[in-house]
Amino acid sequence: MEDFIFGKNSVIEALKGSGRKVSRIIFLKGMKDTSKTEEIISLAKERGIVFQFVPKEKFTQFAQYRHQGVVAYVSPIEYKDLDDFLEKKKDGFKRVIILDGVEDPHNTGAIIRTAVCAGFDAIILQSRRNSLINSTVEKASAGAVNLLDIIMVNSLSNTVDKLKDNDFWIIASEVGAKDNYYEINYSDMNFALILGGEHSGISSTLLKKSDFRVKIPMMAKFNSLNVSNAGAIIIFEAVKQILKN
Amino acid sequence: MEDFIFGKNSVIEALKGSGRKVSRIIFLKGMKDTSKTEEIISLAKERGIVFQFVPKEKFTQFAQYRHQGVVAYVSPIEYKDLDDFLEKKKDGFKRVIILDGVEDPHNTGAIIRTAVCAGFDAIILQSRRNSLINSTVEKASAGAVNLLDIIMVNSLSNTVDKLKDNDFWIIASEVGAKDNYYEINYSDMNFALILGGEHSGISSTLLKKSDFRVKIPMMAKFNSLNVSNAGAIIIFEAVKQILKN
Repeated sequence: MEDFIFGKNSVIEALKGSGRKVSRIIFLKGMKDTSKTEEIISLAKERGIVFQFVPKEKFTQFAQYRHQGVVAYVSPIEYKDLDDFLEKKKDGFKRVIILDGVEDPHNTGAIIRTAVCAGFDAIILQSRRNSLINSTVEKASAGAVNLLDIIMVNSLSNTVDKLKDNDFWIIASEVGAKDNYYEINYSDMNFALILGGEHSGISSTLLKKSDFRVKIPMMAKFNSLNVSNAGAIIIFEAVKQILKN
Repeated sequence: MEDFIFGKNSVIEALKGSGRKVSRIIFLKGMKDTSKTEEIISLAKERGIVFQFVPKEKFTQFAQYRHQGVVAYVSPIEYKDLDDFLEKKKDGFKRVIILDGVEDPHNTGAIIRTAVCAGFDAIILQSRRNSLINSTVEKASAGAVNLLDIIMVNSLSNTVDKLKDNDFWIIASEVGAKDNYYEINYSDMNFALILGGEHSGISSTLLKKSDFRVKIPMMAKFNSLNVSNAGAIIIFEAVKQILKN
């Protein structure tokens, strides 16, 4: 099956964004006409993209998705190359997120969305250990997957080495760390923040290679933040420091 | 149908927690035996709770849930009363979250989980406008729904009035606010943080009654954090201030 994205906001973002090329759009016949539906239709007309209203039988294949009556078929996501990313020039520091085994597409999507809001430059994923960028991730990201570099690598360990060679500092978010996440100065360096998967956390190889290990201190014995929430807390501590600097 | 919860961690939390009474547990016959399965079985035995391994036909009704082969039937969640909550004595300040129209159960669950990690005392929901506490919320909360007071009210507006009468300050998280979220001192007051729904944000009535309106400053034009991530950022700014105080 072609790649597709679903939901009104995601489709609008794709039509506006530069990333994914939308080939055609289907609407559920009889769906409620809203201002967002009209926005999609007018954007599609502007860009010469075909759309049609189809009976609900054609939507059964999308039943598991919260499609809100809209599905757009799109070109496959274009993963970026790490070397190209490192060579790209930028004023100021580069900031990236490394996902080490994050499996839930809602989490991956939310992290991408937060990274974009924070002005981060890239998300690095290992193909073997993470949820790939599918339509659920894209929906959860509210279309943000098209607004930063998504870099897919074979080995996170080699990637971390290469980042270090390129003047990046490596920060691991780890429940058992000694230092609190707000005790680091994020504003004056290139850095990669590693977030570990829901089940296994960050692999020991990556932990060993990290320059900083940080924890989020808890006020309760229940020590288990959702990974996207944990990521948001650290990412926006960095933003705060950068803005105050 | 009885209330049920699913997924290994959620079932373990329920068996350990004081909140929901588990009446019986079913496992998917032929599922992979893990240490967590064994933990569930040993907890169930300790507590005299019946369990059985059932064929996959019995699991078809749970197909839409990520059940990992385990479902526990539980007593309905016990919503707490606002007046009882306000009368409860506590050393130090009380902190609560008000959800105004949060619809996605993944978000509601993640917010509850983060609130528990942060030592907050209660979540207040309006029955009409929010996702109720169902099994998906419970799973997303990793069982945290049993570790703080869930208060269901008819009117958030009346609730805010009552909180103010009881020496609570009301903080609204709003994209268009002037002040940054980290410019408030959270450590020396009772407060309620209002988080608005994915689509409509916080209602104007509640905004008007708020003592503080705060925004999370962005580093990009993409101005749309997932509500649970936005909540986590503000909640843990409060935690940081409380710990440093």
